Amino acid sequence: MRDPESAGPASPRVQVHRHAERARYDRETIDAILDEALICHLGVVIDGEPLVLPTGFGRVGDTLYLHGAAANRSLAAALDGVCITATHVDGLVLARSAFGHSMNFRSVVVRGRARAVTDPEERRTALLAVVEHGIPGRWAEVRQPSAKEFESTSVIAVDLAECSAKVRTGPPLDPVSDRDLPVWAGEIPLRLVAGAPRPDPHLKAGIDEPPSVAEVLRRFPGPAPTGA
Amino acid sequence: MRDPESAGPASPRVQVHRHAERARYDRETIDAILDEALICHLGVVIDGEPLVLPTGFGRVGDTLYLHGAAANRSLAAALDGVCITATHVDGLVLARSAFGHSMNFRSVVVRGRARAVTDPEERRTALLAVVEHGIPGRWAEVRQPSAKEFESTSVIAVDLAECSAKVRTGPPLDPVSDRDLPVWAGEIPLRLVAGAPRPDPHLKAGIDEPPSVAEVLRRFPGPAPTGA
Repeated sequence: MRDPESAGPASPRVQVHRHAERARYDRETIDAILDEALICHLGVVIDGEPLVLPTGFGRVGDTLYLHGAAANRSLAAALDGVCITATHVDGLVLARSAFGHSMNFRSVVVRGRARAVTDPEERRTALLAVVEHGIPGRWAEVRQPSAKEFESTSVIAVDLAECSAKVRTGPPLDPVSDRDLPVWAGEIPLRLVAGAPRPDPHLKAGIDEPPSVAEVLRRFPGPAPTGA
Repeated sequence: MRDPESAGPASPRVQVHRHAERARYDRETIDAILDEALICHLGVVIDGEPLVLPTGFGRVGDTLYLHGAAANRSLAAALDGVCITATHVDGLVLARSAFGHSMNFRSVVVRGRARAVTDPEERRTALLAVVEHGIPGRWAEVRQPSAKEFESTSVIAVDLAECSAKVRTGPPLDPVSDRDLPVWAGEIPLRLVAGAPRPDPHLKAGIDEPPSVAEVLRRFPGPAPTGA
């Protein structure tokens, strides 16, 4: 892993141009943003036109894994060129001017070409990574994929060779000339919160919530009881 | 507006293929998903490769507006072809099998070509829509854009002619043959929650939180006090 302080973009194609001071090129930051994201947006080119679809994913080291139906056109198109983008909206930024409004966010952009995953062992690793990405500990709790389920699935891999992150935090950046305006300015933080789990209507009696559910509730906790 | 019950896809390019029963082609559903989304993911083609970036946006009737720096390459590329996708993750869906795991979500995909917005009045309408999209009521509270700020900004418009939504709700869809497995199954709902507003460090004394802040807190409320 490169030194975060000295890291630059892996290629000009993932260099952050606007607000370059918000760019992050170190893998520690990039991995953390990816690992916290429940979905990514998969961008491909089909018939010369862009197509962007939301999808789950998983990460194993330097590799992102995505899966879908065997006939999935986006996964096939990703072999010719792909952009995977994951974004967290962390808050609204209210400036004293209309123009100064912004959001606090963390995003990662990964570009490159996807590889079709055909090796059975790597396909299993990929599906495990996708399930565990959103729900750590879940794989060992559930029925493993059947041969038929595997056969109906396309899996692709995208290397994290060409990627960058962009992070905005903190208050609005109003020019000094705006500071005396009689306008409230500041941030409103936002985050994902899990609600109470809803058991499946067909759940058999006597089956308790497993550790993976508790883990999800820990990852997306509600506000502290003393909060507003 | 077309009858939701009879609505089909506006073009084959936005027809939902996988899980077609989750497709929604009525504008009421599409508009509601767009209006609740704080950001979209803007997909374009640059040098033959896909590029997907998160960005704010606004909607006025049948038109989506996006803005950025005048030199923004993505906005320029959008004139040749664009895909705008907005997604809400509403929950994790835990099935009894690894393969059956899913998420509850609402997404909208808009395809087409963007139009550069050059008319001063429409540019003002667009910037107003972007600010008000995330923070209703904010435009009237703040300093209006200066001529210089307008000049530094590119604005594009994308028509909602070719768009579709996909919505998944409810419990896992385990096959009957999985129902007797001793595995917990169900949903864990997720939603965005606003935290306590943080005033700008330079905020002058005596400036109270305005109605727009209260509106954001109403849009993204915390769990009810009786909740977990």
